Amino acid sequence: MAARAKINALRARLSARTGKPAIAVAAHNPLSAKLVAQTYGFDAIWASGFELSASYAVPDASVLSPNIHLEMTRAMAEVQDLPIIADLDTGFGNAINVAYTVPRYEAADVAAIVLEDKTFPKDSSLRPGGRQLLVSTEEFQGKIAAAKASCSMLVIARTEALIAGLGQEEAIRRGITYVEAGADAILIHSKQKTPDEILSFCQAWPGTVPLVIVPTSYPQLSFDEIAKLTDNKVGLVICGNHAIRAAVSAMQRTLAQIVEENGIAGVEGEIAPVSDIFELQGDAAMRELERKFLR
Amino acid sequence: MAARAKINALRARLSARTGKPAIAVAAHNPLSAKLVAQTYGFDAIWASGFELSASYAVPDASVLSPNIHLEMTRAMAEVQDLPIIADLDTGFGNAINVAYTVPRYEAADVAAIVLEDKTFPKDSSLRPGGRQLLVSTEEFQGKIAAAKASCSMLVIARTEALIAGLGQEEAIRRGITYVEAGADAILIHSKQKTPDEILSFCQAWPGTVPLVIVPTSYPQLSFDEIAKLTDNKVGLVICGNHAIRAAVSAMQRTLAQIVEENGIAGVEGEIAPVSDIFELQGDAAMRELERKFLR
Amino acid sequence: MAARAKINALRARLSARTGKPAIAVAAHNPLSAKLVAQTYGFDAIWASGFELSASYAVPDASVLSPNIHLEMTRAMAEVQDLPIIADLDTGFGNAINVAYTVPRYEAADVAAIVLEDKTFPKDSSLRPGGRQLLVSTEEFQGKIAAAKASCSMLVIARTEALIAGLGQEEAIRRGITYVEAGADAILIHSKQKTPDEILSFCQAWPGTVPLVIVPTSYPQLSFDEIAKLTDNKVGLVICGNHAIRAAVSAMQRTLAQIVEENGIAGVEGEIAPVSDIFELQGDAAMRELERKFLR
Amino acid sequence: MAARAKINALRARLSARTGKPAIAVAAHNPLSAKLVAQTYGFDAIWASGFELSASYAVPDASVLSPNIHLEMTRAMAEVQDLPIIADLDTGFGNAINVAYTVPRYEAADVAAIVLEDKTFPKDSSLRPGGRQLLVSTEEFQGKIAAAKASCSMLVIARTEALIAGLGQEEAIRRGITYVEAGADAILIHSKQKTPDEILSFCQAWPGTVPLVIVPTSYPQLSFDEIAKLTDNKVGLVICGNHAIRAAVSAMQRTLAQIVEENGIAGVEGEIAPVSDIFELQGDAAMRELERKFLR
Repeated sequence: MAARAKINALRARLSARTGKPAIAVAAHNPLSAKLVAQTYGFDAIWASGFELSASYAVPDASVLSPNIHLEMTRAMAEVQDLPIIADLDTGFGNAINVAYTVPRYEAADVAAIVLEDKTFPKDSSLRPGGRQLLVSTEEFQGKIAAAKASCSMLVIARTEALIAGLGQEEAIRRGITYVEAGADAILIHSKQKTPDEILSFCQAWPGTVPLVIVPTSYPQLSFDEIAKLTDNKVGLVICGNHAIRAAVSAMQRTLAQIVEENGIAGVEGEIAPVSDIFELQGDAAMRELERKFLR
Repeated sequence: MAARAKINALRARLSARTGKPAIAVAAHNPLSAKLVAQTYGFDAIWASGFELSASYAVPDASVLSPNIHLEMTRAMAEVQDLPIIADLDTGFGNAINVAYTVPRYEAADVAAIVLEDKTFPKDSSLRPGGRQLLVSTEEFQGKIAAAKASCSMLVIARTEALIAGLGQEEAIRRGITYVEAGADAILIHSKQKTPDEILSFCQAWPGTVPLVIVPTSYPQLSFDEIAKLTDNKVGLVICGNHAIRAAVSAMQRTLAQIVEENGIAGVEGEIAPVSDIFELQGDAAMRELERKFLR
Repeated sequence: MAARAKINALRARLSARTGKPAIAVAAHNPLSAKLVAQTYGFDAIWASGFELSASYAVPDASVLSPNIHLEMTRAMAEVQDLPIIADLDTGFGNAINVAYTVPRYEAADVAAIVLEDKTFPKDSSLRPGGRQLLVSTEEFQGKIAAAKASCSMLVIARTEALIAGLGQEEAIRRGITYVEAGADAILIHSKQKTPDEILSFCQAWPGTVPLVIVPTSYPQLSFDEIAKLTDNKVGLVICGNHAIRAAVSAMQRTLAQIVEENGIAGVEGEIAPVSDIFELQGDAAMRELERKFLR
Repeated sequence: MAARAKINALRARLSARTGKPAIAVAAHNPLSAKLVAQTYGFDAIWASGFELSASYAVPDASVLSPNIHLEMTRAMAEVQDLPIIADLDTGFGNAINVAYTVPRYEAADVAAIVLEDKTFPKDSSLRPGGRQLLVSTEEFQGKIAAAKASCSMLVIARTEALIAGLGQEEAIRRGITYVEAGADAILIHSKQKTPDEILSFCQAWPGTVPLVIVPTSYPQLSFDEIAKLTDNKVGLVICGNHAIRAAVSAMQRTLAQIVEENGIAGVEGEIAPVSDIFELQGDAAMRELERKFLR
């Protein structure tokens, strides 16, 4: 019920064409998801395979077992209320695997999933020299149809045609066939250092479903500019890995400072106080539980 | 084998009395563990129940299932080489549960465990107004003996006597009986805002096993001062939650900046580049695997 | 939705007073749950801690991590449609732990939970010489209230007063106070070899909520006799461990026969054909998925 | 250490050519593994993907997440002492995924792994009309080499050439190239209803490494006959799914009898007594722990 409401709200938000796309931010654990939710201005959590792999210090190449992603996603949904968009990579196999996987995500209170048209095992899209082989359009249509038939969530089809160097025409052709198969939105990915390739795709895109972009490698445009320059075709922008990159540099700095200063006094003022951590852990809610139920 | 070597090295380091205690730093996932290991100057990873709970945005009150901690600890050991000291809270039950739990941690390549003398379910030691009830000395001796009989790891007994307000005499009495039961070191915890209580305990401590402290709430002393003021009795200092606190404030700042600037261009220079994340994910090792084995 | 319907149907069934109590049968994995569901005549699956512990060959003494039980229960719900009654032991801690645990079971599509009034870590009720200490009535009322406040599932309170040797009067007193705290049914457990103790309790029971029994050690009565002799007060009978006991003796026999006959030809006729296993794995549904979505 | 000893013993046993091959029996949980270990006459546990999938009532088609298999395998190793041969299907991806997966199995105290030359996601070999596509020889050599470079375990290469209908010549060619890549043994699978195809392969096999067979569909020969008719070339026979098939028919019978008899009295004599379950749960060891450590 609540789940259905989140799905509908997200669907409406993606199609709203308000001059500002929805913004989703990648999280790698419930804490980072909660921080995104507490920052007024974001619309969704991106349960990112890349960030999760990074948090385990392993490559984003189908190295982590799929249910580690599922369980972390479920835990994210338990502690905050933004809709979650789950990164299902290639669907962990073929259309059959998609059909078995997708209902588990819906049961984990996820509002949307993204499936990408690469072969399994995937390689990270932004990795220099990465393996970027695509499955056939027909095979991927089967995956989309399997997903749609298995859930009420939004199914976002991600094409890696530009990443794979196949050009805009093929990217658009793929996007269109994915919509025909039932996709609720098309995620178009690019690793160009400027927005040109993506803007060109968006301008040429003939479809009516919302587009989704992940401007990690071409961060130049503001969210409003993205809406404006694509005539509101982009309904969702995913900030793909900024929380974990912020965390990494901060941890590196703090750890180095502790060694350098030979103690922890100096970092105290630089980092969140322990009381903030208690608060993020839901201390107030637990105190309420203690008051009501501990005897 | 490698495991045994790590255990012996850690044991020797704790008893070395070199004027500088060993330093362990808390981690909450393999990434943060790897960052600790990459910072020259640290001796061990503290697989902290508090940090792990915080990363799941739930209270550190036996809310997370024990094998979530076990599996995260195992994953930390897989990606870096520092010895891991695992925070087993109360042992997840009685001495029987300790006996079943401890070998699983040794199999996860852990070098030392910490057991605390609170009742299950625990409450966080530094939480204002937290429930801090201790089990009897006899019961806790049984837990220590069960742990020692079940593994080759260092068994560090943590007394919460000062946290529970029972005073130094009781804390020392407990420490002594824990050593009699086989403890390899005594962790003495305090939530005083200054080091006085801990220094007094250390100076009065009559035993020969190393002491361990977690100076989160009394960060004033440098590591060398700790050694000096306790006559080298403190063999290990645990930095209990600094990495995650650094991560939290950095993520908050970055998220707020994205909203404020209505885009991601501005944060680029502030956060780790994507290439650093690839490197932390072991990209070089994967390239080597690809070169050798992908055909 | 579906979940709510199952909860309501189970609630109605327990109170139906039809001359035949509802029958739940213990399962230890999705396969055994599906076999129960395929046997016409059963009303619910008992997601048993004892059977699950047995399937892991460890004692039923809080040795398995709680989320192993949760995940196995979720997997049972995914493959069959009977309502699941989940055995939560003591709630894995205090009332706070109950409050955090219970919603996770509801999200796993569980229809009812059972909480027992023993101390953590539990010991198996039927174990000769087991540790059977009860928590105070007040403490357990807090757990029941926490469960009720956290979910829509039926909350069944299990008293071990008879198991602990505290007598019928105390058992009834506890039952009444548990109903006052919100319990939807009372599970009264006994390890007597005859039904006398249980029948006496049921006849003396003054409450109106349904009673639940687990007649493992006193199997003499038929289900209809139980209804009749307790004036329909028993709304649910749990067959606590029969599937796994059947599995154990069959596996022992088959394994011994293979060794004795020095080959597998002889057991072929005695055991389920491979085609039955395929069918239980949902082969027909997968063929349908293949036909529709594999391209 | 203990792990290394098990690996060496298994390696020696497979090459012993004693007139009786080693016998491994499939298990799907620690309980069934322990029952195999308690049956004098077996040499190893087969941690079977098929049985595990069946125990979850899902197809053996890469539907279960790989770490469910890993964790169940680890749990099997914890409760009994026979060496475990783990069924890794296709290695859960490409050679890179093999390299990341294999060390985790060695850390779970596994003595040997089996990798098969089908494409991911796999389909069950014995499934009528199943998808049986093979990867190229070169690709599979890469997987074998990756496995060998990542562990000390025996690496058994399984060719599905006969299953895929490619004929004996191709099966032998593949077997030879797999040995060249480092395979310690070759598993040759067949779904013929008689042993002819397998015997023909074995007789024609020119290699010196042991062969492994899984005679589920051609159960006619005794273990001694297999040795004799293949001139001791078969070093290991895997009984692939007999324990779970025995369990299924027994559970079906017992459940039906309970319904038919409207009670549980009748099945009591047919199924293992509760005391046997306690014993299999390690009750004696727990009593010893209680005696020593509970205070």
